[in-house]
Amino acid sequence: MGDGKSTVDEPDHPNPWTTIEGRTVYDNPWIGVREDRVVRPDGQPGIYGVVHFKNKAVGVLPVDDDGGIWLVGQYRYPLGAYSWEIPEGGGPEGEDPEQTARRELREETGLVAGRLESLGRSHLSNSVSDEVAYLFRATGLARGDSQPEGTERLRVRRVDWPTAWAMVHDGRITDSMSLIALLHEAVRRGPGGPPTP
Amino acid sequence: MGDGKSTVDEPDHPNPWTTIEGRTVYDNPWIGVREDRVVRPDGQPGIYGVVHFKNKAVGVLPVDDDGGIWLVGQYRYPLGAYSWEIPEGGGPEGEDPEQTARRELREETGLVAGRLESLGRSHLSNSVSDEVAYLFRATGLARGDSQPEGTERLRVRRVDWPTAWAMVHDGRITDSMSLIALLHEAVRRGPGGPPTP
Repeated sequence: MGDGKSTVDEPDHPNPWTTIEGRTVYDNPWIGVREDRVVRPDGQPGIYGVVHFKNKAVGVLPVDDDGGIWLVGQYRYPLGAYSWEIPEGGGPEGEDPEQTARRELREETGLVAGRLESLGRSHLSNSVSDEVAYLFRATGLARGDSQPEGTERLRVRRVDWPTAWAMVHDGRITDSMSLIALLHEAVRRGPGGPPTP
Repeated sequence: MGDGKSTVDEPDHPNPWTTIEGRTVYDNPWIGVREDRVVRPDGQPGIYGVVHFKNKAVGVLPVDDDGGIWLVGQYRYPLGAYSWEIPEGGGPEGEDPEQTARRELREETGLVAGRLESLGRSHLSNSVSDEVAYLFRATGLARGDSQPEGTERLRVRRVDWPTAWAMVHDGRITDSMSLIALLHEAVRRGPGGPPTP
């Protein structure tokens, strides 16, 4: 479960939950859902439904030499809505997230990253799932060929920084990985600040 | 599905997926998992497993008059790890997220918010789920009584801003809602900047 690494070391505060037994209730190539019978932290019996993600999520913020940002637009089936986001994808358990990031950036936008910088790691929905996302900032971008997957019908769009920042603020961008990456970028630049590629 | 609101209007780019039929494969009080038989955007048959969240997620960044931040620590069962986060909780579909935010802040920390400011809305994991989170910044804090739920064994901790910001940067905070709220705060202050309550 999880990625085997504690978010934070808290040796004096061990797991207050007891797992009695677990059973898999659903499984597909991307997720497995387990229901555990548990004893809760207050000593009462309960259940916990956990969604295990088989891939690590990766998001890449592509920043142009002149400070522009590349976004991809796609219809997100679980939301029933169109969404503008940074390039994102999934990598199998054993794959280096940086390698996943380079591949997904190339597949979705045709861009080849000269340099990747880590923007850290995030657990996206930790009350229910073990999904972990690795975020990167890509610079030194060069053009390659895009090769979207069959499940994707993507549009690629380059926006200047004020536009990207406006999309964060007016709610046109809601995807959590995209918000985290763009907010990191805003801290680096200052919201109206100059590009710092 | 979702909250009925498009992330962005894209009338020229309708849903490229076709749903043939769906069946519920798992259900508990918090989530329902559905598997749909679909035709993918590339015209090929496929399946899509969707995790529907029955509650709206809410996160509250509590900012003291002197600029300090209140965090809660808890063991997150799906991660198998301890996690320091902003106060968070879930509200039923019909409840105003601001009301949920005030209640969860009070329950988890004993703090009563004088003023709540919206930090926007985020879809936390949109490749698989329809989970939506509403984020707020709480100021004018007064002390009440905390009333944690039976599923929670929480520690509450007040940290100064440089500590909170260091926890974002060194990976001690990984929760997506907490990162988004704290990054908004960093933009507002500048990373080393003065408190602006």
